[in-house]
Amino acid sequence: LSRAEDELVAAIRARVTSSLPQVILGVGDDCAVTRAGANARLCTTDMLVEGVHFRLADLDAEQLGHKALAVNLSDIAAMGGWPLEAYVSLALPRQLAVEGFIDELYRGISTLAAQHRLAVLGGDTTHSPGPLVISVTVIGEAAADRLLLRSAARAGDRLFVSGALGDSSAGLHALKQGHADPLARWLIARHVAPRPRLDCGRALAANGRAHAAMDLSDGLSSDLPRLVEASGVSATVNAEQLPLSEPLRRYCAREGLSALELALHGGEDYELLISGEAGLDRLVEGLVEIGEVSERGGATEVLLSEGGIERRLEAAGWDPFEAAPSGD
Amino acid sequence: LSRAEDELVAAIRARVTSSLPQVILGVGDDCAVTRAGANARLCTTDMLVEGVHFRLADLDAEQLGHKALAVNLSDIAAMGGWPLEAYVSLALPRQLAVEGFIDELYRGISTLAAQHRLAVLGGDTTHSPGPLVISVTVIGEAAADRLLLRSAARAGDRLFVSGALGDSSAGLHALKQGHADPLARWLIARHVAPRPRLDCGRALAANGRAHAAMDLSDGLSSDLPRLVEASGVSATVNAEQLPLSEPLRRYCAREGLSALELALHGGEDYELLISGEAGLDRLVEGLVEIGEVSERGGATEVLLSEGGIERRLEAAGWDPFEAAPSGD
Repeated sequence: LSRAEDELVAAIRARVTSSLPQVILGVGDDCAVTRAGANARLCTTDMLVEGVHFRLADLDAEQLGHKALAVNLSDIAAMGGWPLEAYVSLALPRQLAVEGFIDELYRGISTLAAQHRLAVLGGDTTHSPGPLVISVTVIGEAAADRLLLRSAARAGDRLFVSGALGDSSAGLHALKQGHADPLARWLIARHVAPRPRLDCGRALAANGRAHAAMDLSDGLSSDLPRLVEASGVSATVNAEQLPLSEPLRRYCAREGLSALELALHGGEDYELLISGEAGLDRLVEGLVEIGEVSERGGATEVLLSEGGIERRLEAAGWDPFEAAPSGD
Repeated sequence: LSRAEDELVAAIRARVTSSLPQVILGVGDDCAVTRAGANARLCTTDMLVEGVHFRLADLDAEQLGHKALAVNLSDIAAMGGWPLEAYVSLALPRQLAVEGFIDELYRGISTLAAQHRLAVLGGDTTHSPGPLVISVTVIGEAAADRLLLRSAARAGDRLFVSGALGDSSAGLHALKQGHADPLARWLIARHVAPRPRLDCGRALAANGRAHAAMDLSDGLSSDLPRLVEASGVSATVNAEQLPLSEPLRRYCAREGLSALELALHGGEDYELLISGEAGLDRLVEGLVEIGEVSERGGATEVLLSEGGIERRLEAAGWDPFEAAPSGD
């Protein structure tokens, strides 16, 4: 067999792991086959489209591979689970259907997969007459009685995040401005190579005092209303509590941007947003309290408290159907 | 929340099933959550790209939904398994991100899913600045000791297929010619609405006399070498035994095409190709014997026997990286 598709499949097969104990059969048959455990099974899938979610001018193939897997692992983290397997589907423009590109892309995927001990079990590779499209599906597991659901926030809970907000969107800004100084590069790295908070998610699930969680992909002002609505509660975010990194503060001062606005509305931080008991931040490493959950007579409101004044927090995060390419 | 993406997600949520017993949590959280059984777990994913795998002029949204799920179910059938859940990722051109289109697409998916009792548990929906892309992932299960592997064909086996070959590519020809007579419409239906052979696959797995199987997506001359190579055997196809439907014969006679060529090289029939014991066709309904498997001193050859003369069967099936849109 010397045909183009078979060659690509062979190139990919050489780059994916299938030696992990749960794998019965990896790439090369009609389906991958794995052992099914006794826990709850998790499944999540995310599709990244060139010109919508990324530009190849902004990140290289290895970073794209990392990011496409990381955003799915972030979903597994947000349920309190652990990942087992990933499947990668690619629609490649003809000029990218070359071994060098595939090699780099799978290096990004495999390196992150190895860090979290999941198997990459192939998927599908085809041609695109338009943009590069990469769709990753991740299967994981979680203890069925320890799931961190979006719908389980309770009045009286505190809100926490797993790390600084706004860095990713500042990194995107720096990319667009063409900045390459150390400060910009630090923020760009946060944009192109998000770290899924799997350890934090598992610690939260094990702890039992976290009630609800989700990951922040579109921005706090877009994602928090989803949690609030699913749980039938209201929430207040305290502007003064939002964790802003030192590089973000310095970059925003320099560029005349509002760090608070980026932390509220900037997408792709892939930190976890958690609703749980007060004091959770002393039990699970890395958590920062940012607000509280309340009952407001059946209404599901999201408020921002800033300098003692409360106002409605309006969603202004990123929407692929409204935004121009790369959030322009 | 009145934003475009949330509206689409809500429209999709209303159209997907999550009431099946294995489903703990469907659309609306970071992951879908299901019960994990004791069997082997199967996973397969296929990505269809507008202009490569289909043209919207040739099939409507409901047919596209059916086909995108059917090609994955065909992979589950080819392992001898049964499907449990499907995840659908969509990259939609702006003009198609409307409820009517989504509604039709999910009607096609849901109708086929209901026939085979699998849950459709969401996925991801985003914008495409280029072609429509639909990526479906199906999770299933199989008895771990009854898997129909591609690598398990043995010398002395007979080759079987689960139904007539070539109809789908004749249907594609009819579409391109703009034919709409009853004969053309019958063949077109075989192209746009393939039926996954799940019952046949399960019967084969239960029977125990089938050794290897795969589904025919790219055409016999492309797919059989993959089975032969995975198993380290050789195979001979008998041209006279290939099952050709009466509509295919009549259409080919009328259009000056070779029905044999379409049966050998035409893709997308989604019939099963099986290697197993002689007489299997009397035990499992619908099977037709088409050849035999042999050992040729370590070589992995695929021969075609026609009128008593044997020659090498050259792969001439469809390849997304070599073919122009829709196999033109």
